[in-house]
Amino acid sequence: MVSIRRYLHQHPEVSFQETKTAAYIANFYRQLGIETRTGVGGNGVVARISGSRPGRTVALRADFDALPIQDEKDVPYKSTVPGVMHACGHDGHTSALLMLANAVHALKDDLEGEYVFIHQHAEEYAPGGAKPMIEDGCLEGVDAIFGTHLWATVPTGTIQYRFGPIMAAADRFEIKIQGRGGHGAQPHKTKDAIVAASQLVLELQQIVSRRISPIEPAVVTVASFVAENAFNIIADRANLIGTVRTFNDDVRDFIESEIEKVVKGICLSSDCSYEYTYTRGYPAVVPHDEQTKHVVESAGMVAEVTSIEEMEPDMGGEDFAYYLQNVKGTFFFTGAKAAGVEVIYPHHHPKFDFDEKAMLIAAKTLGTAAITYQVDSKVSTGT
Amino acid sequence: MVSIRRYLHQHPEVSFQETKTAAYIANFYRQLGIETRTGVGGNGVVARISGSRPGRTVALRADFDALPIQDEKDVPYKSTVPGVMHACGHDGHTSALLMLANAVHALKDDLEGEYVFIHQHAEEYAPGGAKPMIEDGCLEGVDAIFGTHLWATVPTGTIQYRFGPIMAAADRFEIKIQGRGGHGAQPHKTKDAIVAASQLVLELQQIVSRRISPIEPAVVTVASFVAENAFNIIADRANLIGTVRTFNDDVRDFIESEIEKVVKGICLSSDCSYEYTYTRGYPAVVPHDEQTKHVVESAGMVAEVTSIEEMEPDMGGEDFAYYLQNVKGTFFFTGAKAAGVEVIYPHHHPKFDFDEKAMLIAAKTLGTAAITYQVDSKVSTGT
Amino acid sequence: MVSIRRYLHQHPEVSFQETKTAAYIANFYRQLGIETRTGVGGNGVVARISGSRPGRTVALRADFDALPIQDEKDVPYKSTVPGVMHACGHDGHTSALLMLANAVHALKDDLEGEYVFIHQHAEEYAPGGAKPMIEDGCLEGVDAIFGTHLWATVPTGTIQYRFGPIMAAADRFEIKIQGRGGHGAQPHKTKDAIVAASQLVLELQQIVSRRISPIEPAVVTVASFVAENAFNIIADRANLIGTVRTFNDDVRDFIESEIEKVVKGICLSSDCSYEYTYTRGYPAVVPHDEQTKHVVESAGMVAEVTSIEEMEPDMGGEDFAYYLQNVKGTFFFTGAKAAGVEVIYPHHHPKFDFDEKAMLIAAKTLGTAAITYQVDSKVSTGT
Amino acid sequence: MVSIRRYLHQHPEVSFQETKTAAYIANFYRQLGIETRTGVGGNGVVARISGSRPGRTVALRADFDALPIQDEKDVPYKSTVPGVMHACGHDGHTSALLMLANAVHALKDDLEGEYVFIHQHAEEYAPGGAKPMIEDGCLEGVDAIFGTHLWATVPTGTIQYRFGPIMAAADRFEIKIQGRGGHGAQPHKTKDAIVAASQLVLELQQIVSRRISPIEPAVVTVASFVAENAFNIIADRANLIGTVRTFNDDVRDFIESEIEKVVKGICLSSDCSYEYTYTRGYPAVVPHDEQTKHVVESAGMVAEVTSIEEMEPDMGGEDFAYYLQNVKGTFFFTGAKAAGVEVIYPHHHPKFDFDEKAMLIAAKTLGTAAITYQVDSKVSTGT
Repeated sequence: MVSIRRYLHQHPEVSFQETKTAAYIANFYRQLGIETRTGVGGNGVVARISGSRPGRTVALRADFDALPIQDEKDVPYKSTVPGVMHACGHDGHTSALLMLANAVHALKDDLEGEYVFIHQHAEEYAPGGAKPMIEDGCLEGVDAIFGTHLWATVPTGTIQYRFGPIMAAADRFEIKIQGRGGHGAQPHKTKDAIVAASQLVLELQQIVSRRISPIEPAVVTVASFVAENAFNIIADRANLIGTVRTFNDDVRDFIESEIEKVVKGICLSSDCSYEYTYTRGYPAVVPHDEQTKHVVESAGMVAEVTSIEEMEPDMGGEDFAYYLQNVKGTFFFTGAKAAGVEVIYPHHHPKFDFDEKAMLIAAKTLGTAAITYQVDSKVSTGT
Repeated sequence: MVSIRRYLHQHPEVSFQETKTAAYIANFYRQLGIETRTGVGGNGVVARISGSRPGRTVALRADFDALPIQDEKDVPYKSTVPGVMHACGHDGHTSALLMLANAVHALKDDLEGEYVFIHQHAEEYAPGGAKPMIEDGCLEGVDAIFGTHLWATVPTGTIQYRFGPIMAAADRFEIKIQGRGGHGAQPHKTKDAIVAASQLVLELQQIVSRRISPIEPAVVTVASFVAENAFNIIADRANLIGTVRTFNDDVRDFIESEIEKVVKGICLSSDCSYEYTYTRGYPAVVPHDEQTKHVVESAGMVAEVTSIEEMEPDMGGEDFAYYLQNVKGTFFFTGAKAAGVEVIYPHHHPKFDFDEKAMLIAAKTLGTAAITYQVDSKVSTGT
Repeated sequence: MVSIRRYLHQHPEVSFQETKTAAYIANFYRQLGIETRTGVGGNGVVARISGSRPGRTVALRADFDALPIQDEKDVPYKSTVPGVMHACGHDGHTSALLMLANAVHALKDDLEGEYVFIHQHAEEYAPGGAKPMIEDGCLEGVDAIFGTHLWATVPTGTIQYRFGPIMAAADRFEIKIQGRGGHGAQPHKTKDAIVAASQLVLELQQIVSRRISPIEPAVVTVASFVAENAFNIIADRANLIGTVRTFNDDVRDFIESEIEKVVKGICLSSDCSYEYTYTRGYPAVVPHDEQTKHVVESAGMVAEVTSIEEMEPDMGGEDFAYYLQNVKGTFFFTGAKAAGVEVIYPHHHPKFDFDEKAMLIAAKTLGTAAITYQVDSKVSTGT
Repeated sequence: MVSIRRYLHQHPEVSFQETKTAAYIANFYRQLGIETRTGVGGNGVVARISGSRPGRTVALRADFDALPIQDEKDVPYKSTVPGVMHACGHDGHTSALLMLANAVHALKDDLEGEYVFIHQHAEEYAPGGAKPMIEDGCLEGVDAIFGTHLWATVPTGTIQYRFGPIMAAADRFEIKIQGRGGHGAQPHKTKDAIVAASQLVLELQQIVSRRISPIEPAVVTVASFVAENAFNIIADRANLIGTVRTFNDDVRDFIESEIEKVVKGICLSSDCSYEYTYTRGYPAVVPHDEQTKHVVESAGMVAEVTSIEEMEPDMGGEDFAYYLQNVKGTFFFTGAKAAGVEVIYPHHHPKFDFDEKAMLIAAKTLGTAAITYQVDSKVSTGT
């Protein structure tokens, strides 16, 4: 498992360009003689292994794209591709799933049901790979899906789950405020877009502070404010770009329309005009309670798991959300911080790394959940 | 002159209630046998003295109302009326004009033209006495009008004039922001009027800073902000009251409509509603250049005048403005700060007083301007 | 139970003045011959009933104060006291607890342990009655405490619980911004407190929107903004009053100091000074998980309970918080909305009322929790 | 005069690079046999012509640099240099002064005194050419200086003057707000520089609206706001650049320090740090009253001048200011809008042009002012 991971780590590919990684994965399955579809919804790879008896069809997913970040770690398995790196652990996800497939393949004569190994491209970059893979049939016949993320800031041995939304819907907005430029000494002959946009930034704060329930997590961030001019030329236009994070569709809809209401009012009061674009990214990741309970129980059977805890929701996004909109399932976090390590570099950091032992825990937890999903009488697939 | 002034100082009456003062003034004229109209446009008194030869008709105006302020000076001629005081020098104006009338009356056989002494009530309180007195005919046949204000922060001996607007239009506005109240712990169920009104206060600053020419003096002041509630009840409504000062009708119109534009935009963005009332007070006092030049020359003939200077415009208001909208004329300031005095209390202060010697200077400057207006060939009454 | 409730409803007394209600309660116990302490920490009443065998000591609490609100309902049991009314259901709490005590008293020979009936005054008005009652010994020897609130917007038959904080810490702050007043036409001679305070209101929004984790519920509300002046006088001072709601002590500390940081910065930039007072109200109500589980199980045994559900935290405050800081226990909500009722008036509304059948459910749930607390082997009182 | 102007118009050079233009000018004088210094304070050229009798030394100044703007006019004398153009009329200034020098040279035997023709480079770009030329001695022995600007939006035939400051001090400021960046979904782990800078933009409005006398013209413009980031990355830093315009040194000093006070307060309240740079550009152009009167009278003697009027101050800057800080003198505007022209492109516009007849008026007015300065008994050089 470690050698696969390190090979992948040395040969990262960014989202939507992961052709060699896909070939590597497909080759792995084919060498085992496992039925494999490639080019699923883009660069996706899907392998299916059937047990000897009929049963449920369970999917497991790992993503395999890397990030446009220069690897600054000083390790032998450092990225060999300039400016590209596995800085989020997807190499670990892939490696764990491949080894798990290998084990399932070996045990298949003793197993009921069918196991679908979804290797997804392009998780890092919206619109992502999950949606086209689903549209291309990767969930056909699937009764339940399980997925996990290695998490480098949580100790190895810990499994984190959540009843209710676990990761946020992550959207993007862009607002162009169009005023009328002019000479810095004659503000009255202009419509000052910088002043209007500054006011807008402040009023947008009120959406979270005043207009959404305090118990409803939400973020409205203006990440970029650009109105570049000479020191004596009043801005003609200001461009704002930002992100919205929510866990709830009503709140998401509300914020999308509330931003426009605020923009409209500010522009009316400032005699400016605007363009507003709201682009929906991945929806919130909303695990199903039954399947979450099932993972909690499965994790309890894994020897290396020392702690199973409910976590706070994470404001980040994940296109695993789409699978859960289509079939039952759950998503959980697998701790990957080695004991005794002092400095932890967070995900997406140029020095990011994780505890490779966590891959085994991820594989075992996913595998246990998949195999026991057949016999566990407590789990129903009904709604 | 001093004894009249001190008598008036001891017997002040607030705007629109100056009946005894009016009677005192009328009595003064009647004892001299001068034709006098009382009850002009309210409590106004108008006396007319004709010279022996035909000529121009020149009006001179003094106001005679006091203020609802408790006199805190320690002088023998202190106000005898609790809570009422001549804190702006109108007693001095009246006294100067009466003594000037006495002198004109004595000289009348040597004079051309006609002299109209306008004793105006209610200058301190809009809508003021000037407008109804004009409507009641006080300017009938008048070719020009002159007026002055004693000014306690300018040294005695100084006359201040201005080409162009000398005092501001002084308006009042009121804005009621109607949100929806509720529990302080549940902001999302309310429309927070305090937050909306706070934003409004900030955006109103931009009218002066961005939307009016930097060389155009203007003030937009929110003087009162009231949204009183228990600590845990979100405001239902916030009431703002303020004043606007301008020297130019276009700017005045612009601000009146611009405030509403800002209010409308803020309310749209905050889902609040509003009531907006803009009440025009006195317009700007705009002297006519020819008559201002005439006063400058006249002041030059007054022995006690030691300095004649152009002044910056004053942002205060005066209903002398209305006379100048109807006939040619000018308004100027007569310094009334005694040499050597250290502490000067400003107009409307409970300890306000002025240098009584300034009354003579005011009377002489007005008188000279009036009398020489007949013969001064440089002055035309054409437009 | 209904007749007691209606008697209390007709005879409400506001917080800290509930002497007749206290006497009524004490009398009820004394007529049954039950040991009763009065004047506990003020107007509190505490009755104790011992079973026939040793066991755990379980406390149950009901509050009994009313609100300074005029009763506007049209019912026979309407308040007879002008301007005072049971608008929050404390009459129901009291009535339920009295009838439960009656039942426990009747069963006492069959019961283990000891039962403490805490009738608390002054829940509605900080600093509340809970703290002084605890200081006066009402929890002496108590192993666990249970309490509930009738909730008129939740259907009768529903019990709502929560793992983790269920009600918020409710604090009060006051900020006085001291500028320098002056004439509305001369802003440059003043320090405008209204403008500074408006800016402050807007920046305070950022505490929730930017400076606290999006998954941490918190509210910062400016409820009152008062700077009252004549239309032409610039504000000398502006007074802001508001409330802060949090569930977590670190967040509470952070907001207390963050508000001051914002005030200090705004005053520095505006040349104003300030006074800042932060007054802590009730802390957050934080149930203990074991006891919450116990109540969930107990509610399951009550025939009338049709739904048991985890609720979102409520941003309101409750001084039940203090009991839970001293002993193990939990707090839950008992639905009290009758089926088919269309218009529900919320708590603290002049027409507030609740479904009296809910009192029986509250009494049974509390009673079951108390009695089974003796024998339920799953419950430990450790940690 | 027209051919010189058109030659210069076709061969523009930007500020500090005007070597060919300087050579052209020097050559003009040398061909006439006039004493000429080149390389004065950079590319400046100074020629001196003495009359036959002793008298006063009068300087006249014309600037000769062009702008980095692409000429978009469709005329035969269009700029031949890509991206460079005489878009402000300096070609006209130079041409007028050369022809005037020619005339003075022809008349020199009949003239008293000495005439200094200052051809200044680099007016458009601070720190400008005036200062180094003065330091290099161009004003040596000079009793008075006169300068004018052709003005394309004022009708040809009009001369505009002003008692008191006629053009503004034009300064530049830069503010870097340093927060702490981070993920857009985790605002609480960052210090949001965009929000802090937006607040700053709004509070800066108050300097003009509240903190400076309404009759004191001043502008504080934030012209550039740059904080460019990905949509999900919170800004680490925001850079603001802007300009300040004032007519009065006290106001200029006040604004320089007031901006920093505001920045400091905002940063304190937002936990950000800052860098603040205030760079003084040209000071205000403050004509001397005596010399202004002299120009008014001189203009009255020029046949082509049809209107002489006092103008409002212009908020633009001019380094003629430095000459007036060193010697007596004045600066005025010469109308250059041909009768009947409908569309006027303003100064610095790619299609800017002016009425060439205005050059003659400028030359005659400057020449008359210079020559009559010798004999005009009303002008004193004292004070």
